[in-house]
Order: sequence, then structure tokens, then C-alpha cells
Amino acid sequence: MIIQLQPDISENQKEKLIAKVNEIGYKTTEVQTQLGDYIVGIGKKEFDIRKIGQMDGIRDIHIVSDEYKLVSKKWKAKPTSVDLGDNIFIKDGEMAIITGPCSIETEDQIRKVVAHCVENDIKMMRGGVFKPRSSPYAFRGLGIDGLKLWHELASAAGIKIVTEVMQTSQIEEMYPYVDVYQVGARNSQNFNLLDELGKVDKAVMIKRGISGTIEELLQSAEYVFSGGNEKLILCERGIRTYERASRNTLDLNAIPILKAKSHLPVIVDPSHGIGIRAYVPQMALAGVMSGADGIIYESHEVPEKAYSDGQQTLDFAQSARLAAWIRESFAMRKGFDLL
Amino acid sequence: MIIQLQPDISENQKEKLIAKVNEIGYKTTEVQTQLGDYIVGIGKKEFDIRKIGQMDGIRDIHIVSDEYKLVSKKWKAKPTSVDLGDNIFIKDGEMAIITGPCSIETEDQIRKVVAHCVENDIKMMRGGVFKPRSSPYAFRGLGIDGLKLWHELASAAGIKIVTEVMQTSQIEEMYPYVDVYQVGARNSQNFNLLDELGKVDKAVMIKRGISGTIEELLQSAEYVFSGGNEKLILCERGIRTYERASRNTLDLNAIPILKAKSHLPVIVDPSHGIGIRAYVPQMALAGVMSGADGIIYESHEVPEKAYSDGQQTLDFAQSARLAAWIRESFAMRKGFDLL
Amino acid sequence: MIIQLQPDISENQKEKLIAKVNEIGYKTTEVQTQLGDYIVGIGKKEFDIRKIGQMDGIRDIHIVSDEYKLVSKKWKAKPTSVDLGDNIFIKDGEMAIITGPCSIETEDQIRKVVAHCVENDIKMMRGGVFKPRSSPYAFRGLGIDGLKLWHELASAAGIKIVTEVMQTSQIEEMYPYVDVYQVGARNSQNFNLLDELGKVDKAVMIKRGISGTIEELLQSAEYVFSGGNEKLILCERGIRTYERASRNTLDLNAIPILKAKSHLPVIVDPSHGIGIRAYVPQMALAGVMSGADGIIYESHEVPEKAYSDGQQTLDFAQSARLAAWIRESFAMRKGFDLL
Amino acid sequence: MIIQLQPDISENQKEKLIAKVNEIGYKTTEVQTQLGDYIVGIGKKEFDIRKIGQMDGIRDIHIVSDEYKLVSKKWKAKPTSVDLGDNIFIKDGEMAIITGPCSIETEDQIRKVVAHCVENDIKMMRGGVFKPRSSPYAFRGLGIDGLKLWHELASAAGIKIVTEVMQTSQIEEMYPYVDVYQVGARNSQNFNLLDELGKVDKAVMIKRGISGTIEELLQSAEYVFSGGNEKLILCERGIRTYERASRNTLDLNAIPILKAKSHLPVIVDPSHGIGIRAYVPQMALAGVMSGADGIIYESHEVPEKAYSDGQQTLDFAQSARLAAWIRESFAMRKGFDLL
Repeated sequence: MIIQLQPDISENQKEKLIAKVNEIGYKTTEVQTQLGDYIVGIGKKEFDIRKIGQMDGIRDIHIVSDEYKLVSKKWKAKPTSVDLGDNIFIKDGEMAIITGPCSIETEDQIRKVVAHCVENDIKMMRGGVFKPRSSPYAFRGLGIDGLKLWHELASAAGIKIVTEVMQTSQIEEMYPYVDVYQVGARNSQNFNLLDELGKVDKAVMIKRGISGTIEELLQSAEYVFSGGNEKLILCERGIRTYERASRNTLDLNAIPILKAKSHLPVIVDPSHGIGIRAYVPQMALAGVMSGADGIIYESHEVPEKAYSDGQQTLDFAQSARLAAWIRESFAMRKGFDLL
Repeated sequence: MIIQLQPDISENQKEKLIAKVNEIGYKTTEVQTQLGDYIVGIGKKEFDIRKIGQMDGIRDIHIVSDEYKLVSKKWKAKPTSVDLGDNIFIKDGEMAIITGPCSIETEDQIRKVVAHCVENDIKMMRGGVFKPRSSPYAFRGLGIDGLKLWHELASAAGIKIVTEVMQTSQIEEMYPYVDVYQVGARNSQNFNLLDELGKVDKAVMIKRGISGTIEELLQSAEYVFSGGNEKLILCERGIRTYERASRNTLDLNAIPILKAKSHLPVIVDPSHGIGIRAYVPQMALAGVMSGADGIIYESHEVPEKAYSDGQQTLDFAQSARLAAWIRESFAMRKGFDLL
Repeated sequence: MIIQLQPDISENQKEKLIAKVNEIGYKTTEVQTQLGDYIVGIGKKEFDIRKIGQMDGIRDIHIVSDEYKLVSKKWKAKPTSVDLGDNIFIKDGEMAIITGPCSIETEDQIRKVVAHCVENDIKMMRGGVFKPRSSPYAFRGLGIDGLKLWHELASAAGIKIVTEVMQTSQIEEMYPYVDVYQVGARNSQNFNLLDELGKVDKAVMIKRGISGTIEELLQSAEYVFSGGNEKLILCERGIRTYERASRNTLDLNAIPILKAKSHLPVIVDPSHGIGIRAYVPQMALAGVMSGADGIIYESHEVPEKAYSDGQQTLDFAQSARLAAWIRESFAMRKGFDLL
Repeated sequence: MIIQLQPDISENQKEKLIAKVNEIGYKTTEVQTQLGDYIVGIGKKEFDIRKIGQMDGIRDIHIVSDEYKLVSKKWKAKPTSVDLGDNIFIKDGEMAIITGPCSIETEDQIRKVVAHCVENDIKMMRGGVFKPRSSPYAFRGLGIDGLKLWHELASAAGIKIVTEVMQTSQIEEMYPYVDVYQVGARNSQNFNLLDELGKVDKAVMIKRGISGTIEELLQSAEYVFSGGNEKLILCERGIRTYERASRNTLDLNAIPILKAKSHLPVIVDPSHGIGIRAYVPQMALAGVMSGADGIIYESHEVPEKAYSDGQQTLDFAQSARLAAWIRESFAMRKGFDLL
């Protein structure tokens, strides 16, 4: 169960409330987020919700049978709108477009992608400065200095930054320069990292694990939310299956399922989802029709020269066309009475 | 390599040709389809294609490095159009819509679905009369009598019939009543069945195996094609992965990949692909945007009362809306310059 | 529920019994096997088993909640012993060793494998005469003539024949020459084939599907059993996963699980399970320790020259060593008090 | 390529060497471990190894075509022996037995497991004090205080401690109390953690990722090794597949493959590998026969009362029997001439 507390609840009222919940046989966890205070009760016994609902100091109470609680739509039916400032949102009812290179490489490269975003009215740019690589000998990114430079150029142009954080020690140093912390697929169940991101007041985008279930993605989000941070975005980026004709298997089934289970916005990454440049636009548009709230894809001035992921990266002409098609498809989808 | 023969090639010319191909170190298979005669050469050695290309009796010759040959786009760049008669086609550049129940149940049920198709200008109807079931104790379908009744009602309304054939002995008895033989996911590598369907002059739709690769689907199609039947349609219907939030994992990556590798039309089955009624429309439209040439989905007057698969079946109101959205999405997609 | 009938039950008694079971809300299927007659009741309602158990003409009655019934250990706790004649069995408490080439190739090859079996006291020989191949252009086996020749040589030496049947039309022509019909992984859910094998009085070994679940394997066995044939053997041969360092992923977990769920004997195929010759012995012995009732592996005089699967085939020296190790390991396992 | 340097190589010699390797077109990484100094060269061009091999200051040079270098058997054929002190090793040619509870719970629990180990001559004990849990509301372990207590009791009895480290910040605080740092399946590609463990002089056991490939496991080990720590152990613990009859799919194929590819010791975790208590012994013994250098399994005085994983945990009587069987099986395996 989730109990949202009145802002002015007294300590005495809270103690009584917790005692009552424990009495039923539920363990309690207190959760404080930037937006409110909650008691999360974990247990399986049935009980009469009115017995607690009538107590003092309670704003709202819901029974949530899912393993995840605070990110469930059973508790909060209204979709979460993630506000990045400057009137830029990632939310249900809008179509976020996020593009940029796999790796941040040089000042010149950043300038060109920023200019490309400005020209195409794209408000969010992706790029990696800390790169998780299977091999220790591969390029691991420009690090914090790259991020500072990027931030300088992007913020001047009104562009928000989406970039991966790989470990807890990076959270603080990245903080002034980042708008959305991305948790990568390999860190999707790095629970310490998720705990720490719960304490931050900036948005967090969690990518589904390499072979993560939809349920696990929601539980990872629950870590961040119960840690205190409600500014959460979920991202489908393809899962690992036996099929090798594509890099991953983009699981668009996950989009309507996540949208139905959770109030959090959901975006699709077709670049990692298929891994082949020529087919990224089709999968991006399929993502739009599946019900996504945004698309994140890779672009570069000269994909063939990209330090990483060039094979799945669009050039600027392709990216400009795709951005327009995404908007056109989204406008059409809004006209349909889809769930 | 594939050598298309002149219709008037002499026996002597053919013998010389085969001898020459064998001499290079290639094994030869003679293939006769309804549309032409071919020699397929299987081998790995490099050779000068002109040495053979200049011989008498040859219309065309191509080197095809794929394991599959005749279904490869490397041999035949022009998309295959499957003609079902009465100006009804499944082909690149059009959007086939196929709907109907999981199982053919009663005369009343057939009449209602046929009427639903007619009202919505849907030209092809699906339904099972031979049902593959995991358990021997489950409903196995009405059999050939159900098919005859269905054919009577559907053909009177100008509706084409798509239905599963489970074994070679059924091919002949079904022949007068079927327009598209469907090979189910569990029979996707039933090579004897594929061989026999190669001898038929009616269309064959092959569903991807439960855990079949894209490559294996194309090789299964090669069985039918090399058996003599060029009227082939491929169908993505979801694959088996670790994820259990959906019935299968609809692999839309497969659509642009299949379209690039093969000249055959490709259709998507969102009903089996996700297995949850409320999300079938989203996945159908995602399928359209991924580049499919058709959508096959389940519908029934009262899905809750369907003998099988009710949980993933649309009612007629939902189906009517979806058919309209599919057409609208396809019209938009045609305006995009997708690969 | 499963009701085993008295051999002398009267028609009147049977009708009353079926009426009673239907009255409870269960559908009934009559099953006749070579060993007995049964009524299988399918339904979900709870009922008092004594109400039926006291009726006339019943030998035994059990409630079986599994989807599969007759192959479940809940019905028949005593392990099934498959008798191949001449005092050769595949059964719990013994260790069957089956070896031979992937494909039957020539008379000389057969003679040599038979001699190898005789020398090493191996009583069962495997080999393919009908070969399922992904590509229509690959070697498809010697067919029925190869089987006749093989049978002549093997039966003279007292060796039993295990070979794949690919379609219903082959069952009858193979009958005089085969001791165990093998259903291959691609046909594991070819329900028509399973139905027909239920009518035969020779043993059937069902391989787990390419991505078949343990539950599906048991349901496939239920097809054969409920068709009338109790002489069944289950075979784990590796499943399809994302891992490509081995041909398949040998799932030895399946062995103790199958042995606990069913009364049927279970054997392991390490050759297909790993697909790499050097590691076949380790996986064979691991299979023994996991609780298998037999091991089936590929051997050939000169594996490098085998028509198919050479990379996973042992030579005779390796095979002789492995057979000895299998026996030694099994003797040790029998001394352990494993479940 | 890997170049092992002479301990007394001069800076000048080293610079010349690096310049030469770069000249060929290879990038270089300097690696210092507790046992030696290396230059790892990364590139794909072919070159004459003698041109470098004749230079001054080199002890050894090998071409390693694998993505992983220092952990490859192509570089170091001799198996690595991980020395835990007090004459306790994890190494090829011995059979390490590691047991203990999923979670360290209480002083009484620790005492009882330690006593069980002593009685059965088991030298290494496992247990979790930092627990990665899918849900933020689940028990997360006793933390560092639990570890201190455990260390006091275990070291007094001569028992080595194997326990999971979840994040870089824990490495230092755990250091005095741990003998083997375990990297859990969810952290198998937490590259920052692997980097930091490369700087430690205690042993590290890396579990294969939830859906990690064999190749990725070796590359994760390469991170630690190239970070400076050669004391590495690999652990197979089951992978995620579509099968749900067991918790994971224990991939014993991985054992001979890892042993052939790498010089590192490999151990098997049958408890997580199958997840069902009754079948843990079979899978442990199968692991022995597959070629493992050790078995790690869960035990508890009263498994039903364990805080976590009780369903896959043995009681002490079962554990005592299993330890004896493991030793007996290993003794037999040593007599076989397996690869």
C-alpha cells in the first residue's frame, strides 16, 4: 500500500499511522521525494483500507499489488511530466526528440550537432562522455572535461543534455552540466547507483537491461523514486535474444505495457534497438505508433568517422528527415483513439 | 548461383550447361516453378560468371552468396506480387488486411465475420480449421467440413481464405477451398510439408518459427520456392524470449531486414505478437511503419466467447477502427522516403 | 483425472462412468494403449474423488493437476521401462548407451560402426536416413534403402536401431526396420506425427524442441501416450539461447526436473548439446551425474569425413573411452543417494 | 599482442618498444600487475613478431587474436593458481568447495555454518552482507558490521570468506575482512567496479552476467587483470533463457569452453543455476564432471527459515553428503583423460 501524507502531519500522527500499518502485518518504508512524503507498506495480507484511510494526517491511500509501488499507475493514474526547464518536457501527450552522437568527440563535433539540433528544433541532445565498453582497451570517452565543454555549447543554444552516468562518484561532478542522467543498460540493476540517483533533483532516464524484464525495469525505477526522485523516464533499447541479424531485438511490446503499468514517460531508442543505420527510421516510427512519448537516436556529421556506433548512426540529412517524420506520425497517432 | 533458363532451351544445351557448372565444382539442382525453369548451383569457389553467362539457352545468371538463393533479392530485385485472383494481391506497395477468428466455430460465426469484412472492405479472412494445440485434449478445430462451409460463405462474398495446413495429407483435400495455405510457427521447419507446398499453385504464407531466425525463415521459403511455387508470403508473429509480460516478443526489426534480403512480401501478426487485446492496435500500426506489406489480426463478434485466443482478439468495432487506422498510417508511410 | 479401467468393464458400466465424470463438469477422452484402457477427464472443478472411485469397473483413479496427464508421475509413480526386445531396455536404473553417425552414408560405414558397437558392448545404434536440413540443397539422407541395409547389418549383430522419422507417411515403411522412432527437435510439436506414432507398438524417442519448454516436451509425449503408445523416451539435446560459443545450450537442469515430473526415461544428447567434439565427453558425463537414464552421442570412423555434424562427432577410440567412463560414472552415481 | 617486460627494462628501452608497436599500427596499454609488467597491443594488422621479439627488455611476446588478451590461454598456457593463504587454493587440479548461506543473518547462524564447514573440512565459506535485490523494499543485508563479525568467527576457524562487493566505495572498508571479493551477476559489466578491483591484491570471483556471454565474462576478467590483479576466478551461475521450470539455465557447456579459452580457474554455482533444493546435488556433480575447479553452493541450518533463497539452500546433512560426493566424483574425474 502507498499512503501519501499531509505536508503538516504531526510526528505523533505519523507514529500512530506506522504502528497501525505494522499491526496489520505490513513492513513500512518512509519515502521522501521532492514532491511529497509517503509511507510504503509491504505485505500480502488483505485488510480493510478504510481502517487506515480514516486516520489523521493522510492525503491519499492506495492498495498496489505490484512488486513496484510508487511507479505504478495503480497508485498514481495521472501521467508524470518530467520538466527539464525552459518549457522543455518529457511527458505523455508530447513527443520528445533526442539526438546526438554515441560519443562526444571534439569541440567541432559538438558545435555541429548543436547546430543541427537548433536547425531542426530539437531541444535535447544525447552523447556519451563516460563510455561503458566490453573491452578495457576500447575508447572510454572524454570524461568530465568533455561534458563541461559540451554543456557550455549546448546551454548557450538552449539545448538540454542527456548523458550516461556510470558510477556514484560521478553524480556530483556531473551535476552542474547535465539535464538528464542516463542509466545505461549494463547498469540497469546497479542498485547503489539507483539509490544515489534517488537523492538528486535532476531527471533520470533508465534504460532497460540487456536482458531485463519489464518488471525489473519498473523495480529499478522504484529504487530511484523511493530514494526521493520522481523525475523518471523509462527507455526501451532492445533486448538480447537468440537472433543475430540485428544488434538487439527492439521490444516494442514493452511500450504499451509500460504505459499501462506505470505513470512514467517511456521513450524508444531505435539506434541500439536494431543497430543498422538504414532501418533506424522505420523502427523510430514504429516506436511512435507503439505509443512512445519520445525517441532517442544517434546522429553524427559523418557517421562513418564516429568513434563508436557509426554503423547505427544517421547523418544530419537523414536525421532532419526523421525528425519531421516522427512529428508527422505523432500528430496522426494523436488523432487515433488508442489506449 | 542461379541460372534462369530460356523456355526453349534444348536438352543438349541444358546438359552442356550443367556439365560446365559441375566442372567449376558446383552441385546443381534443377528447379521448375509455375513461372520459369532454373538451375541452382551450390558451391563456394569463385569463378568468372561470364564463362557461363555466354552459354546458349540462358536468360539470366546471378551469383547469390546467401544460403538461400531463389528468395534472395540478390537474384530478383523486383518485389514478388502474390496474386490471389479477383484483383486481390499481397505485394510491396499495397497494404493487405487479413482478419478473422482464431478458430472457425459455427456457421453463424462465419457469416458475421464475413459480413464484417465486407462492411470494412477487407478482402481476406483468416481462421483455423486444423488447430495445432500443445495439449492433445484441447479443441482441434472443425476440420475439412468447417473449411467447406467457410469457403461457400466467403467466396460468395468475394472474400479470400487464409488458413493453416498442418500436414501433407491435408494439402489436397483443402485445395479447392483455400486461397492461402498458412504454415504455422510450429511447422516452420516441417520440411516435408514445405516440399509438398512447393508443388501447389496456390499461395503459401510461412510464419516464422517459435524461435526461428530470420535466416531460417528465408530458408524455409527457399524449400517452397525451389519445390516450384513462387507465390510466397513471409509472416512475423513474435518470437520466444525470456520476457513473459507479453505472449511473444514481436520482432519488428525483422520487417526491414526481410524486405532488404528478399523480394517476397512480408506481413505482421500483432495478435500473436503481443497476445493482449488492448495493445494489438498499437503493434499493428507499428508494424505498418516498420515497412510491412500487410497486417493479419484476430477478430470475433464476442472475443470473450471465442473457442481460443479470445484474450488477443478484437471485437468488430475495434477491428473496424483498426482497419481504418492501418490504411491511414500506410498512406502516410508511402509519403515518406523510407528504404 | 485419470481413470484406469478394469479389462472386463462392461459397456454399461463405462457409459455410467463417463456420464458421472461429465456431470461433474469434466470433458472425457477415452485412451487405449497397448497396456491398458483409460478415461482421461479434463476440467478444473474440485470434486470428491471417492464418488467416482467407488463405481464399478475401475482399477485405479488419480487426480493429476498438470496439463499433461498420462505421462505424469502423479498418476504413475513407477518408472516406465521401455523394452526393445532381446533383453535390451531403456529405463530408470540402467544406463543406455546409443552411438553412431549423424547420417547413414555407406555399407562400409555401417559395418564399421556396428563392429565398434559390438566391440564396446553398445546395444543401440543411432543414425539418420531421413535428414531434416535447413537448406533444401543440403544432403537429405539415404532414405528407406539406407535403413533396410542398416537393419540387415545391425540386427545380425544384435544391435537396435534408433532413427528419425520426419513425417507420417514414413512410419509404415520404416516399421519393419526400426526399433526406436526418433522425433527430431524440429518436429517436437508436429502434432499429426505424434498422433500417428501413438498408434504404433514400437518405442518413440521425442527430442525437446529447438526452444521447447520442459512442459511442452511432456505435452508432446502426452500426444503419443494418449494416442495409445506407452513406449516413450524423452531426450534433452540443448536449447536455443543467445550464447553462440556452443551450438546449443545443453540444459541439464531439465534432467532432474523431467525425472521428477514424469515416469518416462530421459536421455541426454551431448553431441548436439554442445556441438564441439573435444567437449562431448565432459557433457556426456555431466549428463550421467544429472540423473539421465542414457546417453546418445555421435561417432564415426573418421569424423572429419562425415557427411554431416563431423565437428561434434567422436572417433572410435574416443567413443570407446567415453563408453567406459559413462559406465564407471553411472556405477558411482548409483552409490549416491540422489533424488 | 602481449609483451611481458623484463623487471629491469630501462625507460629508454620501454619507450623504443612502445614506439615500435605504435609504428606497426597498434595502440598500446601499459599493464602492471602484482606479478609482472606488460604492454598490451591492440590492433588488427598482421606483422612479423620477430621484429619486436628481438628488442631489448622483453621477456616474452605472444600474438592473441581474442578480444581479451591477458586472461587468454593463448598467452599463458599454464593454469593460474589463486592462493588464498594458509595453503588454500582455487586452481586447476584441485576441487574447491565453498558453502554457506545466501545472507549472513545472525551470530548464531554464522557459528553454525562455520562449525559445519570445519566438520566437513570445507575451507571456504560464502555469504552475503551486501545484497543486491530487485525490489528496494527487500532485505539488503547486514552490511559491514555483519562482515566484521563473520570474519572474526571464520578466521578463528581457518575458514576463508567469499562475499559480494556491490560498489567501489565498499572495496576499502571490506578489505580487512574478505578473502575473495565476489562480483555478482548484475555487476558483471560494472566496469568501474572491475577497474577498482584491479587495484586490489585480494582474489576476485566474477560471476557470469544474467545474460552474459562467455566472451563478455572473459572481457570482464580482462578489466580486473589489466587493472593489475591476476587473482581471478570465473563462476558459471546460470543464464536467463525462456525456460521457467528452473530459476536459471545452468550452462555447463561454459565450463570446458572457459577452461580451453582461459588460464583462470572456473567454478560452478548449482544453487542459483537451478534454484531448486532437491536438484542442487545433481547439478553440482554434473558441474564436477564438466571440468569445474570448484563448486559454490548454498547451505543453512534450517533452509526454510533463511532470510533469502531458502528454496535452493541445502541443510547441513544434505551439504555434508554433497561435499563427500563432490570429492568422490572429482577423484574419479581425475582418473579420466579428459581435455
